[in-house]
Amino acid sequence: MAGEIEARLKALDLALPEARGALGSYIPFVHLNDQLYIAGQLPLVDGKVAIAGKIGAELDLGRGQEAARLCALNILAQAKAALRDLDRIVQLVRLNGFINAVPGFADHPKVLNGASDLMVEILGNKGKHTRIAVGCASLPLNAAVEIDAMFAVD
Amino acid sequence: MAGEIEARLKALDLALPEARGALGSYIPFVHLNDQLYIAGQLPLVDGKVAIAGKIGAELDLGRGQEAARLCALNILAQAKAALRDLDRIVQLVRLNGFINAVPGFADHPKVLNGASDLMVEILGNKGKHTRIAVGCASLPLNAAVEIDAMFAVD
Amino acid sequence: MAGEIEARLKALDLALPEARGALGSYIPFVHLNDQLYIAGQLPLVDGKVAIAGKIGAELDLGRGQEAARLCALNILAQAKAALRDLDRIVQLVRLNGFINAVPGFADHPKVLNGASDLMVEILGNKGKHTRIAVGCASLPLNAAVEIDAMFAVD
Repeated sequence: MAGEIEARLKALDLALPEARGALGSYIPFVHLNDQLYIAGQLPLVDGKVAIAGKIGAELDLGRGQEAARLCALNILAQAKAALRDLDRIVQLVRLNGFINAVPGFADHPKVLNGASDLMVEILGNKGKHTRIAVGCASLPLNAAVEIDAMFAVD
Repeated sequence: MAGEIEARLKALDLALPEARGALGSYIPFVHLNDQLYIAGQLPLVDGKVAIAGKIGAELDLGRGQEAARLCALNILAQAKAALRDLDRIVQLVRLNGFINAVPGFADHPKVLNGASDLMVEILGNKGKHTRIAVGCASLPLNAAVEIDAMFAVD
Repeated sequence: MAGEIEARLKALDLALPEARGALGSYIPFVHLNDQLYIAGQLPLVDGKVAIAGKIGAELDLGRGQEAARLCALNILAQAKAALRDLDRIVQLVRLNGFINAVPGFADHPKVLNGASDLMVEILGNKGKHTRIAVGCASLPLNAAVEIDAMFAVD
């Protein structure tokens, strides 16, 4: 009777993207005993950065939130590739959010909520996490957001 | 005979601020077996960012150090909220320090010392930690510094 | 019969630099049961930042990769100082890479490969890791790259 999280995804009408390989000479996840580390994920759709540019310049807050949400979906896709079964997630411990924004941008928490809200929507209490949200001068492939994650798993 | 750290706080004439809720849809700490993860803390006083702006522009090094020190106090406030008893801290393992600074700023280590020195003053050898110190183009609410932490606890 | 990694270093004609002390009031590593946390390392040679400046301005991609490689060598130097024997490394779990780059820079993954490739060259499968790669407005001592690490160890 596995598949509680999968059922929630279905109820939310959400499909996880395909877990993508790394963009460099690293690997997308390391599963170490009861901890699962996920490499920084970009707002990929079909393996391409779907939302690029600087928040506060060519991108508004809403697009930033959408980018954060896409990063979160890609994190879950990697978690599924690592664990096979998302029900093995005990707790999302940490999201580290890096936001490509203009100097002086101040709404990083609202941007990251695009990812945080989705995690709680999908994982329930197990999706409640700590996080950082900081602004970057640049990000890989000019992505609007990059987020990495650490899960406690069984 | 609990309260060794509390006694040290008293001897240093330091009061921890109230542990504040998260600024978004996340939680301020996750306690996972023998590890305690604290979300990124800002230089809050009475729940408001007390030191905002860019170090190297409107803020000098001293103000940056003060901001880092305030972040450290808020980290300890969260640790106390999580553990009830600060004597349960075995080791401060990591501080990740993000500094809102002008391009070309180079004194990140000195800024972060405002937090690192305080941790050692309060926690003694248990306060000796690894860290990163990097410069950001922007931070939440235009805070001067953001610092997150991970503790080993029993 | 120890010294497999040392032998690989010799075969690659690589010498680890001397593990340097911290640049501030912190410590270069914390060894916590089966995890080893290394503080952010700069591209030091003989204890001095060998590659300073912004990638995309005064530094090109190749110099950035060289800087990342130097950070990786300093990470391994710290790991050796912590463990004495590098064969105790079970897995490199995480590299966090911070790159001093001009706004709009997009090749962070290629820069970080300078560190990632070296880790796999030296550690083999145990060197395969997750990572983040983000762009910073400034870094300590104007270093081109800063990288921290977490290892699983026995």
